[in-house]
Amino acid sequence: MGDFTNFGGTDEENAEIKRLNADVEADPDNFENWEKLIRACEGLEGGLNRNSSPQALATLRDSYDRFLLKFPLLFGYWKKYADLEFNISGPESAEMVYERGCASITNSVDLWTEYCSFKMETTHTPHLVRELFERAASHIGLDFLSHPFWDKYLEYETRQEAQDRIFAILNRVIHIPMHQYARYFERFRQMAHTRPLEELVAADMLARYRAEVEAEAAQFGVQKTELEIERDIRAKIDASFYLIFQRTQEETSKRWTYEAEIKRPYFHVTELDHSQLANWRKYLDFEEAEGNYQRIVCLYERCLVTCALYDEFWLRYARWMSAQDNKEEEVRNIYLRATTLFVPISRPGVRLQFAYFEEMCGRVDVARDIHAAILTKLPDCVEAIVSWANLQRRQSGLDAAIEVYKAQIDSPVVDIFTKAALVTEWAFLLWKVKGSVEEARTAFAKNVEWYADSRHFWQKWLEFELEQPTNAELEAQHAERVKNVFAEMRTKSRLSPGVKQELGQVYLTYLQQRGGKQAMKEFLHIDRELFGPQSISPITKAKLSKETAGLPGLDEATRAKAERRFYNYYQLHMDPDPNAQGPASFE
Amino acid sequence: MGDFTNFGGTDEENAEIKRLNADVEADPDNFENWEKLIRACEGLEGGLNRNSSPQALATLRDSYDRFLLKFPLLFGYWKKYADLEFNISGPESAEMVYERGCASITNSVDLWTEYCSFKMETTHTPHLVRELFERAASHIGLDFLSHPFWDKYLEYETRQEAQDRIFAILNRVIHIPMHQYARYFERFRQMAHTRPLEELVAADMLARYRAEVEAEAAQFGVQKTELEIERDIRAKIDASFYLIFQRTQEETSKRWTYEAEIKRPYFHVTELDHSQLANWRKYLDFEEAEGNYQRIVCLYERCLVTCALYDEFWLRYARWMSAQDNKEEEVRNIYLRATTLFVPISRPGVRLQFAYFEEMCGRVDVARDIHAAILTKLPDCVEAIVSWANLQRRQSGLDAAIEVYKAQIDSPVVDIFTKAALVTEWAFLLWKVKGSVEEARTAFAKNVEWYADSRHFWQKWLEFELEQPTNAELEAQHAERVKNVFAEMRTKSRLSPGVKQELGQVYLTYLQQRGGKQAMKEFLHIDRELFGPQSISPITKAKLSKETAGLPGLDEATRAKAERRFYNYYQLHMDPDPNAQGPASFE
Repeated sequence: MGDFTNFGGTDEENAEIKRLNADVEADPDNFENWEKLIRACEGLEGGLNRNSSPQALATLRDSYDRFLLKFPLLFGYWKKYADLEFNISGPESAEMVYERGCASITNSVDLWTEYCSFKMETTHTPHLVRELFERAASHIGLDFLSHPFWDKYLEYETRQEAQDRIFAILNRVIHIPMHQYARYFERFRQMAHTRPLEELVAADMLARYRAEVEAEAAQFGVQKTELEIERDIRAKIDASFYLIFQRTQEETSKRWTYEAEIKRPYFHVTELDHSQLANWRKYLDFEEAEGNYQRIVCLYERCLVTCALYDEFWLRYARWMSAQDNKEEEVRNIYLRATTLFVPISRPGVRLQFAYFEEMCGRVDVARDIHAAILTKLPDCVEAIVSWANLQRRQSGLDAAIEVYKAQIDSPVVDIFTKAALVTEWAFLLWKVKGSVEEARTAFAKNVEWYADSRHFWQKWLEFELEQPTNAELEAQHAERVKNVFAEMRTKSRLSPGVKQELGQVYLTYLQQRGGKQAMKEFLHIDRELFGPQSISPITKAKLSKETAGLPGLDEATRAKAERRFYNYYQLHMDPDPNAQGPASFE
Repeated sequence: MGDFTNFGGTDEENAEIKRLNADVEADPDNFENWEKLIRACEGLEGGLNRNSSPQALATLRDSYDRFLLKFPLLFGYWKKYADLEFNISGPESAEMVYERGCASITNSVDLWTEYCSFKMETTHTPHLVRELFERAASHIGLDFLSHPFWDKYLEYETRQEAQDRIFAILNRVIHIPMHQYARYFERFRQMAHTRPLEELVAADMLARYRAEVEAEAAQFGVQKTELEIERDIRAKIDASFYLIFQRTQEETSKRWTYEAEIKRPYFHVTELDHSQLANWRKYLDFEEAEGNYQRIVCLYERCLVTCALYDEFWLRYARWMSAQDNKEEEVRNIYLRATTLFVPISRPGVRLQFAYFEEMCGRVDVARDIHAAILTKLPDCVEAIVSWANLQRRQSGLDAAIEVYKAQIDSPVVDIFTKAALVTEWAFLLWKVKGSVEEARTAFAKNVEWYADSRHFWQKWLEFELEQPTNAELEAQHAERVKNVFAEMRTKSRLSPGVKQELGQVYLTYLQQRGGKQAMKEFLHIDRELFGPQSISPITKAKLSKETAGLPGLDEATRAKAERRFYNYYQLHMDPDPNAQGPASFE
């Protein structure tokens, strides 16, 4: 769009489209805004058609392209887009849209069927049509609800009067567990009566059946006519078909309970109910136990259309695929789709797993880039920064890790309380990895003037000093150090009284477990100050009056950041609650 | 009772009492069983009286004594017991019961009033009666609802026709904020008109009033008669009384809202509503802010009749009292009552605080005995054992602390999973206090064969190895050690899969933060094994099928003990929930 204000409509229409474009840019996750934009574009110049202005058509295509890049799983909109292109510029344009759509949502029975239907109406070269039907079959042929597709395929071959092909299709379909398996078998069985024996079974099987029939006849000393022999062979073949039917029936009914539970087989931006997620989990467990790789992949792909916004299923798919032999590229592809398209950036866990996977594959640069990409969107994601530093530590050594922390601490977009957490991580690297207690202590002591309001900073500093081993010689010095950190925390920080109580408990435990002969005097004194009634405890008094003890307080938003706790992916891991009801949050 | 089966009644009655005695012994906290026992004893021989058999009377007294030792705050039963003794053996016996009762529940307005009433009916020596009334006044005179007592006192002096004493009593009462303050003031004011001036105010005040009246008269050149002067002085005194009334009224109304909220002023074994506890907290806050020591103590004592079974208020009282100057004996008395009578043994926190208090006072032996006493009732209280060991460490050194652990680990009454926790504490002492990493490591390695099913044991062992600092030189050895502990945990323990996941997370974090170049390969492998779908994860599979992975499982009760988490008093500390509704648990 050269001219950003000319969308091809009236001034009023242009203003409206400009506004709707601004809306979707401001909040690209808002599905309703997108729908409004699409509707407004379609309505330009009284409804678009092949005589509409180039600007209006460009506006429409631009909107559809952006919309379907954001929501590629909306097969209905791909169909609508293809129809529009067909009306505007004919079958070649429509076909390109179908191709893009089927590449974006590879397992939509509806979209593939629409595409095939379109193709058979617009193409007069049967082998091209059949090629498409076969491509479709490879993507969606195993779907439990693929009957509209198979019906369309059979319809085409019926129109071509290709009885042998119809029979061959039916002969494939009757092996697939699907909703309408019985109907196909009935048609197959009827048709089998009219097909030559050679088409029904392979030559070696046919020879075996003939031998059996002749042997049975010989047993009773009977000489059968060729017609009688063929009738008997057909009876045997029919019995073998019935065995196939029974197996397919059995496989179908095993899946029926799971399939019947799927209330929403298509993608939507709204949340799914917990019961739906539970059903997918059980269905995947079942299909994995059955052990057929193609069927398992097919089911994961279906699941990940419906559950595309739940990282649980992407992670599960990646873990399952990783456990199969030689599937590195497939695993990568799963992570790529999850992280570039679907899982909200607010859940960095799957992206970090992706980075670890690439690191394992020796693609360390990619692993770094994934970390960097998380931080461009979430500059205060401590988990990602620590993960990045450790990636550097593992691959390039301690100094490289420290460089990561330095860069983030110097960055103007990183919050001061994030920096406080990074300083503690830096100190822990010096202590635990480098083995230098003194350098770590200096890191805390030098930085306290900047980070005195950070809960995490004090917690880690206390932890650091408390964990230093002592012996009879060092005890007094150690006690002095711990006491000083606690005293500084109480006087220098503007933490809320609840946090001071919490950190105070750590000190009380220290006095019990490491303190000397007189420790209980201080213990009971601090116990009173922290937990006594407000007439004797400044902490309790501040708590009840909702003020900070001593120093002037922080505003609520700053306090929330100052007292934030940092969790990693595993700490937040929870088993699904089997009794959960209602919609399941994406977070 | 020499003969344990002869309670003095019929065979049937004796059998019943035997059964009821067994019931209360089996479950001494069950109040209803006690009530049944008392009722059965009173009903012996068709109702006890002074002609009943000595066995029946002994049975009655024994039951009452045991009942009131267990529930000393039930003033109504003390009264009943005294009445019974009066009927059975006369006033001396009854008086002894009253004395015991008033010593047990020192602030019951009802019981003191009953006692005084009994005394004035049975004693003809006024100074003995008055002595009792004065003792009572010192205990309950400040109670907001003490009017029945004051009325009784006034009734006695009225009977003695001691107008001066009546007036003196009223002159005390009108300063006390209480429910019926207005009535007493009215009577006091009326009476003041009839009393000589010298009784109304002190001599110096009287002289000042007289000087003022004479000066005012002189101003106008008037010479007043003595009668006129007295009338004017009385007017001035009356005005000063009115000031007292106003102050008492004000003090009364400040307390009125709290008093009106007290729904149950007496002791009962059932739980109180949260709102009642909240009201006591606020009332105590108020009275502490007012700052009158006597009134604060009086209110705590009232509160601790109603809330005797909630350790929160005992701890609060002890903390508050500790913050006052020179109240060591009072603090000790609070702890003694809390720990010997009221707070359930299942909440050892207040007992440990008592021990720390005694340790601080230099009474280390008492502190030890308190710990020992907890363990006789709660042999598996890890918090108490650790506390005891640390008491020994502080006062007698490391070896004394280790002796405590040794003794408990050798004890046949201590559970094996408690012992597992104690071994980890022992190891931590060796590591942190003695500074010997090697000895600590040996403690873990030597003991794993006994405690391999303890969650806590593995958690602490992992923690121990993970926390050892490294440097480039030690890194490989360190990694090997951590890996071995993790591997042993997975293969040797019968922990449930959820616990293995939890401990596995610790190892995953280790691989991220301390692992080397190839660490991510192992990381992703273990990630799959812990969190993958059940087709690839033995842990998930065991979780879904509710079995243990690998080894045969533990039964449910053993598993609960094996995977128990240990908390100390402070970790369980919570602020009262201001929105809590309904009955508040004692736990």
